[in-house]
This record gives sequence, structure tokens and C-alpha cells, in this order.
Amino acid sequence: MNVAICQTNPTIGAFDENVATIVTNINRARIEGCDLAVFPEMAVCGYPPLDLLLDPSFISSAQSALKTIAGQAGGIGVILGTITQNKSSIGLPIHNSAVFIDNGAVKAVIHKRLLPTYDVFDESRYFEPGVFSEPVSFRGRLIGVTVCEDIWNDPDIFPHQRYWHDPVAELSRHKLDLFVNISASPFEMHKREFRHRLLAHIASHCNTPCVLVNQTGGQDSLMFDGASFAFSGSGALLCQAKDFEEDFLVLNTENGNAQMRHVSFSDEEAIFKAIRLSIQDYTRRCGFTKVCLGLSGGIDSSLVAVIAAKALHPENVLGVLMPSEFTSKESIEDAQRLADNLGIQTVTIPITPVFDAFKASLAPSFQGLSSDLTEENLQPRIRGALLMAISNKLGHLVLATGNKSEMAVGYCTLYGDMAGGFAPLVDLPKHLVYSVSRYVNSNGELIPERVFIKPPTAELRLGQTDQDDLPSYDVVDAVIKAKVEEHATTEEIIRTGFDDASVKNILRRLLISEYKRRQAPPGPKLTGKAFGPGRRLPVAHGFRYF
Amino acid sequence: MNVAICQTNPTIGAFDENVATIVTNINRARIEGCDLAVFPEMAVCGYPPLDLLLDPSFISSAQSALKTIAGQAGGIGVILGTITQNKSSIGLPIHNSAVFIDNGAVKAVIHKRLLPTYDVFDESRYFEPGVFSEPVSFRGRLIGVTVCEDIWNDPDIFPHQRYWHDPVAELSRHKLDLFVNISASPFEMHKREFRHRLLAHIASHCNTPCVLVNQTGGQDSLMFDGASFAFSGSGALLCQAKDFEEDFLVLNTENGNAQMRHVSFSDEEAIFKAIRLSIQDYTRRCGFTKVCLGLSGGIDSSLVAVIAAKALHPENVLGVLMPSEFTSKESIEDAQRLADNLGIQTVTIPITPVFDAFKASLAPSFQGLSSDLTEENLQPRIRGALLMAISNKLGHLVLATGNKSEMAVGYCTLYGDMAGGFAPLVDLPKHLVYSVSRYVNSNGELIPERVFIKPPTAELRLGQTDQDDLPSYDVVDAVIKAKVEEHATTEEIIRTGFDDASVKNILRRLLISEYKRRQAPPGPKLTGKAFGPGRRLPVAHGFRYF
Repeated sequence: MNVAICQTNPTIGAFDENVATIVTNINRARIEGCDLAVFPEMAVCGYPPLDLLLDPSFISSAQSALKTIAGQAGGIGVILGTITQNKSSIGLPIHNSAVFIDNGAVKAVIHKRLLPTYDVFDESRYFEPGVFSEPVSFRGRLIGVTVCEDIWNDPDIFPHQRYWHDPVAELSRHKLDLFVNISASPFEMHKREFRHRLLAHIASHCNTPCVLVNQTGGQDSLMFDGASFAFSGSGALLCQAKDFEEDFLVLNTENGNAQMRHVSFSDEEAIFKAIRLSIQDYTRRCGFTKVCLGLSGGIDSSLVAVIAAKALHPENVLGVLMPSEFTSKESIEDAQRLADNLGIQTVTIPITPVFDAFKASLAPSFQGLSSDLTEENLQPRIRGALLMAISNKLGHLVLATGNKSEMAVGYCTLYGDMAGGFAPLVDLPKHLVYSVSRYVNSNGELIPERVFIKPPTAELRLGQTDQDDLPSYDVVDAVIKAKVEEHATTEEIIRTGFDDASVKNILRRLLISEYKRRQAPPGPKLTGKAFGPGRRLPVAHGFRYF
Repeated sequence: MNVAICQTNPTIGAFDENVATIVTNINRARIEGCDLAVFPEMAVCGYPPLDLLLDPSFISSAQSALKTIAGQAGGIGVILGTITQNKSSIGLPIHNSAVFIDNGAVKAVIHKRLLPTYDVFDESRYFEPGVFSEPVSFRGRLIGVTVCEDIWNDPDIFPHQRYWHDPVAELSRHKLDLFVNISASPFEMHKREFRHRLLAHIASHCNTPCVLVNQTGGQDSLMFDGASFAFSGSGALLCQAKDFEEDFLVLNTENGNAQMRHVSFSDEEAIFKAIRLSIQDYTRRCGFTKVCLGLSGGIDSSLVAVIAAKALHPENVLGVLMPSEFTSKESIEDAQRLADNLGIQTVTIPITPVFDAFKASLAPSFQGLSSDLTEENLQPRIRGALLMAISNKLGHLVLATGNKSEMAVGYCTLYGDMAGGFAPLVDLPKHLVYSVSRYVNSNGELIPERVFIKPPTAELRLGQTDQDDLPSYDVVDAVIKAKVEEHATTEEIIRTGFDDASVKNILRRLLISEYKRRQAPPGPKLTGKAFGPGRRLPVAHGFRYF
């Protein structure tokens, strides 16, 4: 049997566009002699639609779209993800389903049973779970069909069972000819390897070929890496689709013939692609073609500029230099050299006149009080307002350039350097900012070498460096990872070898800057736990964990 | 039997403080001859702790706190809400439980079975549900204990069953002497009446007295109104605790003796109290004693100033007048008169010098382009930066003064009038801003009469009024309510009698301003659906419902 792996990048709620993509893939699969075309979870409506699922017109649009697709699916089998109605009078009104179409008619509807409701996932908010798992008979073969999380409760892989059911175990009681999982599984570092491990185990256990078809594309803060693949019953990787773009592969399930595409072989490559696609999809889906960003001559804004230029072409990226009295000559030179390397346009707007006007206006209210954080924060706020003015006047989306380490410890100014429509580095810790920057420089200098060498500084007062105010970023990043990603206790973190005072300082800063993160723009999730919709903390609370 | 209704205002994660409050209430109940003291859902840790529940040290702190409480509960029964561990190796690690303590020993642990996972609730993210409902025998009586949502699936009340189980039906098979529901049920308009209807029905159905003990207090955007109450088996209201403050009542379940406190008897009174408490609890829990806000002379900032002055005392409220060339003499007079009426201090910082400096700095980049929204947005952004500077220098929390109608249609400036730590009116539509303002003026003028009469204006260009850019607020509010709260389709909204163009204009504005709301500060939820954590929409998507 020939199976087409149709790795698409649907836009949430853009039903006409998504249907057109699906029909194009079905036609190609038919032309290439496929028996079956398999699409990702929710390929019809895009994932995750969130509360658009509560809008009856969204549901009816999805139903119409499915009819249109079925009408174009003669002579072939199609498995694709969409929303279907719960026919029971009890429970939530919709299911997250895999619909199996055979020669234009709906042959089976398989409801997702395990509904992830953790991290960025809210599926119990929307979907009624399915209650049984039966294979589908198609052209003399028995096919087991599952939706994403349905395979994520394997007792051989997970030390702890989150769910009381295991659809894989139920399906594996049958002699399957093919096992299919349709997914909308977001990227995080090293997750691809884990998906391989999961599916390889099922393939061996069921002694049957297994295919996983994953969505690609950027949906606000979620990045879907695609990277669909298949394993043989003997546990061999049969095919591999590209990561971070659409792809189409044909797998012969009898002889295992299929293609292996290149996928990222380093974290840095994957992160670069993830951020690049996130900028492309976010700008496009918000109706922008151009972006602007502040260029400080530092590593963060340099990396964002590089990736934006790769994502959107240099002519669509505007670098804005906004020097103050505290900006070094080197910073301006480095920013300009970066822009020249990339071929992006720059504009320079010194902030001193506005800064002076602010200080003069505030002087009567601040009489007798010395200069402090107030004046430091005013500078990025002026820059934020200038970038927003450029956005308003010239139509650029503002990219905020802050990284995860800064966001974690609140070393950033609300409405200042945090201002923008999208924040590409918001889930990238500082040490990875450096290594991804090295990666983008691997074919020749884009980011000037001096940017790597000089100590990080916000240049908000004379001679300032980040490490005047913070422990070293290596310590910050390790402590934040332990606390945010691994929920380690303060004692456990200290026990790994960091000094008590630094750990408590970092954890205190993490806690008290929650209010800033609440108002931060979205950016791509890259790690196991990003600040954003997958991390929900009260702002005003009394819990002190340090 | 004498039952103490202990309506507390716990702080999330402030275990020492919460334990002290609980023990004080237990002691008082014992002194007043009570058999049983009943506390709200999660009284030990506060509700909702959100992802603090994923922190092992939060769980262990809750366990220690329970031990301390039990150690202080000799000679009395106590029912209180907390987190308990799931003893099964499958499922989520914790339950949301009612713990029944008798004379210092844990007698029963009743796990919440129906886990709300909609709107602002995420309980399936955290809790393993209970699987059975059995009454507890205490001092010769049979007591049915439920936790909040457990009573929200009554087939006689709800036309549609969200859940497959009904703990009330299971408990009602027993001859109960008392039915108890411990809640952390957030306020929204008219919800108190609905809770009464729910519990009265259970009381009649079980022919037994029913008590509901609800949390009070403000937890970020959730307001808990308290307003605990009891019904007799014949369906009579036996007692009523205060709304929006802590309270302690004793109910004799045999003769029905108990007190009736005053509760709000108008929407306006309830909204006023809700916002007042939200400001009190948010500032206190974030470590602030003082607030500042921009006073424009308009109705929104006037109402916020009034409620803030009532919440925190006038000396802790600073009104900041930031006039521009477009600010009318009347606006300044009205702002100053309001401040005088309230006895709050003001400071005046004209924005023209900074505005001119911004325009001069941007002039080279904007050559040949005419004045537009850019210059309008710069003005509130300057005001936002000035308020944040005051916050940084003088330690005031900034209150943003925008209302729900503006937030809905994006008639507000990101980092401008939206800037602030807390937004008291963020869920109050404009028409209710007026009626609550009338309410606060009912004992004499606080808000100058002229503020009610003049047409709303942002004063960002000469002679501007809101209705130059928007349909009338009555239309905006009705369309937004239909779409946001009731998920009506565009056709349904037009059919109720609004003109096609206005409806589509409002819905288009609603859709394209999602990115602004994503970066908005929190504020109290007052309606059935607030912008905030209970409404989760993608920013970049392709669904067009208009």
C-alpha cells in the first residue's frame, strides 16, 4: 500500500485556504498512485484554535470544509484531523477526531481519547474524549488510527501514567497492517528524538509499520516542526519529512520504500529554523510584510535581525539605532556593521532630546530625589515608543529582542525593550542566544565578532554591564531551567552546586517579575517550559519558595 | 447542630497567614458553641493557585498547614478545602478535596468530582477527580459534603449536562441531615441569585438544610464575592453572609436560627464593591500601599479615582493630570474638581514638551508623511511613560483606566492608556461605567456632573469625540456582549436589530485588536466573559466571522 504523508501548515480558521491545500495534496497523492493520504490532526481548521472552538460558526465552517474535501476525494483513502460533533446529549459538544474518508465517503470517525491538558494544551476545555479504539478496515488492510496524545501513555516509556486508558494497547490486540498517528505536536528541543522512540516502540510491539504525520508552522507561540516519519515493524526508520516546512512523501508499506529528507542535526539549526518560521508565519498571518527592531549592537538584537532578514528578506527589515549618551561608539559601529552585513536598511534616532524633555517634565515632581532605576527605565520606554511610532506610521511589525534569561529575572523594561508585536527570543536562554548566533555566523560573519566578546550591557548608565546586577548568565540559565522546566525546589537547586545567595536572588527576581511577563508579547516556544500560555501563575500571591 | 460559616479571604500560597485565619475562626466557633466550622474550597492554600500546584514545595507546604490546623481543632468538627495527594499510581498527582476533621483527626477526605475546565477554570490541568460520593457520619448526623462544581450539573437546572456524573444525585439517595458545599466561586453579575436557585433546589430535593460557604477576596482578575448562605429543607433562605468581605455566621440546623447580613441589592453596588476589593487585595498582595492614575477629566478615570480613594484612602491615591494642546479647559477643571471632591493629591505634567521632542526626533524618518494615528498614539504613550516613571520613583502602582468597550474594539493605546499594573474597569462596559458612576455619586457629587454630560473623547486631536470613530457605546456594548459572552453569530446579532455595517465594524475591530488585549494588565472579572485568562484566542489566525 502506498501512503502519502501530507505534512501541511494550516492557518487556524482559514478554511478555504486549508481546504485548497488538502485537496492539492489529495490530487498529488492520487497522481502518484497512493492508496491513502494522511494529514495532521486538525488539518481542516489548524491547531490550536483555542476559544474559536466555542464559536458555532467556526464549527459549522469546519463541517462544510469536510464536505468539500470529501467531495474531492474520489478513488482514494484520506485520513485527516478535524472537529466533529458529539452526538450524545451529555458532555462537551465536540470531539477532536480523525476522519477516515474512503472514495469520497466518511468510512470511520475516530475520536481522540487522551486529551492533553497541561503546559500549552487545554483540550479538556473543548473536547469530549472518545471511549473506544477499533481499527478500520480499508482495501483489505486493518489500520489502527490514533490522534496525537493517544500514543503518549505507553507504560513502557512513561514511568507515570497520566491517563487511565491506553488506545495503543487496545489497538494492538488486533493484527494491524498499519498504525497511523495524526499529530499537531509542537516543537521543543529534543522532542523529535522522543517521538521516534515512542513510535519505534509501538511499531516493534505491534510488529507493523507506523506512520506519524505532524503539522508544521507557527501559531502564535507554538511552533510545529512537522518532521513526520514512519517506522517499520522491525523498528527501522523508513522515512523522514523535513522539519519546519511543508512536505509530501510517499511510503510503500510493503517494501518500506520512501524518502529521507534532511532534518536539523543540531539544536542550533532547529532553533534557527523554528524562530525563522515563527517570524514568517506570525507576520504573514497578522497581515504584515515588514518588521522593525531596535539595533543596540548587542547579541540579542543582532540575532533577531539576522533571523528576521533570513525570514522576510533584508529589504523588509528595518534596523533602528536609538543611541543615548550611554551608548558606546563600538555599539553603534557594531549595529551598523551588522546591518551592512545583512543588507538591511537602518535609521538612527538619538533619544537624548526626548530623554531630556522627560527629565525636565518630571523634575518638579522628583525634586530632591536622586537618579535611579526610573531614569534607566525611561530610556527603553522612549525607544519602545519610537519603534511603535514607526510601526504606526510605516506599517512595520515591531520585534522585541529580549531573551528568556532577561524575561526570567525581570531584567527588562515593560513598555520599553519588551514592547513589540512578537518576541522571537522570548524562550531562548542567553547561553543559547550565543550558540545560535555562532551557528548563523558559521558561513561567514553576519554578527560582528566584537558582539560576541564584549560583556552584555543594557547601556542605561555609564559603564553598566548586566553582571553588575545579575549573577552570570550561566548560573541564571541553570537555575531558571531547574525551577521553571523541572519544578526543582530551592534546596535541590542549591544542592546541585550553586551558592545560596545567587540562587535565592534569581528565584526572588523570577517571582517578582511575573507581572512583567503577564504583559509580554508572544514568541516561539523552544524549551520544555516557556513563559507564555503554557505557564500560568498568579501575579499577586503569597507563596515564597526561596 | 450549630454550624459556623467561616467565610475567609485566603492569600494564595500564604500558608502561615491562611492557617492563622482558619485557627482564629475555629477558636471562635468553639467559643460560640459550634459543632462544626465550615471553610471555603482551598481555604488552606487560596484559590486558584494555578501552576503553583506544579511546585512540589507548594504541595508539601499545604500538607504541613493541614497538620497544623488539625492540631488546633480539638473538640470540634471542621470541613475545609485543600489539596491532597492522589494515592493511585495512575492519574494526576493531586486532588482538590474537602477534608473533614473531627476532634483533631482527619475523619474523611472527599475529592471534588466535577472539575470545571472552561472560562477561567483549568481544574482538569491539575486535579485527579474523585470517583464516588458518600456522606460522612458526624455526631450522629449524616452529612453530604461536596466541593463547588460538584453541585453544578443538576439536570433540573441545567438544560445540558456537561458531566457524566452527578454527586448530588448520589448523595441524595441517603437520608442526609445536612448538605454542605464548599466553594471558591468567582463573582459575576447575577451569579448569587443563580447559586441560591441551585442550592434551594438541592435543599428541597433532599429535604435537608444546605449550606454553601464561599471564598471572598480578589485574586488577580478573579473576584470572590463570598455571600455564603444556607437554605432549609423547605427551601427557605436561612442565612446570608456579607458580600466582598470576610464574615462569620452561626447557623442552627435544627431551628434555622442564623443571621442575615446586608448584601448588594443592585448591580452597581456589587460592581462597586467588587472593584474596590480588587484594588485593595491586588495592591496589598503585590506589596503596594499607594496608586497613581492619569486623570483626564473623563468618566473612566473619574470612576477609577473614586473607587481607588474608597479602597485605599484618599492619601494613597495620586491623580496625575497630563494635559496636551488638545486638552480642554473643562477637562482640566473637571479632573481637579474630582480630586478636590475626593481629597486626593494631584500633580500636573503637561506633555507638550515631550510630544514636541518626539515629533522632532521622528521628523527625519517621517518626512513628507502627514499626521495620523501615529501622533495620536504618541500622546497616551508619553502619559504611560510618565506614570511608570512616577511608579518607579515614588512607589505607586499605576492603575490603567480603560473600560471593556474600549478594550473590545481596540479604542486604546498599547503601552499608553493601557499601561499599568492593574486595570479596574477592564471588564466594565461603558454603559455600566456610567451607571456605577451614578451610584458612587448617589450620596453627593464626587464625579462632577459635567463629566456625565459631555461626549466621551480621548482628546488626541482637535474636537475629537469617541463617536467620530465608533458606533455609539450602546451599540458597541450590545454587540460585544452578544459576541463575547453569548457566542452569537454575526447573522444572529444583525437580526436583533443592529445595522449590518455597525455590527461588522465592531466585530472587525474586536478581531484585529486581540494583540492589544494579549498585553493588557489584569483587572477584575465582572461579567459572564471577561477579556483575560478566561478568554483564549489566537492572535494570528484566519477566521473571519463578519
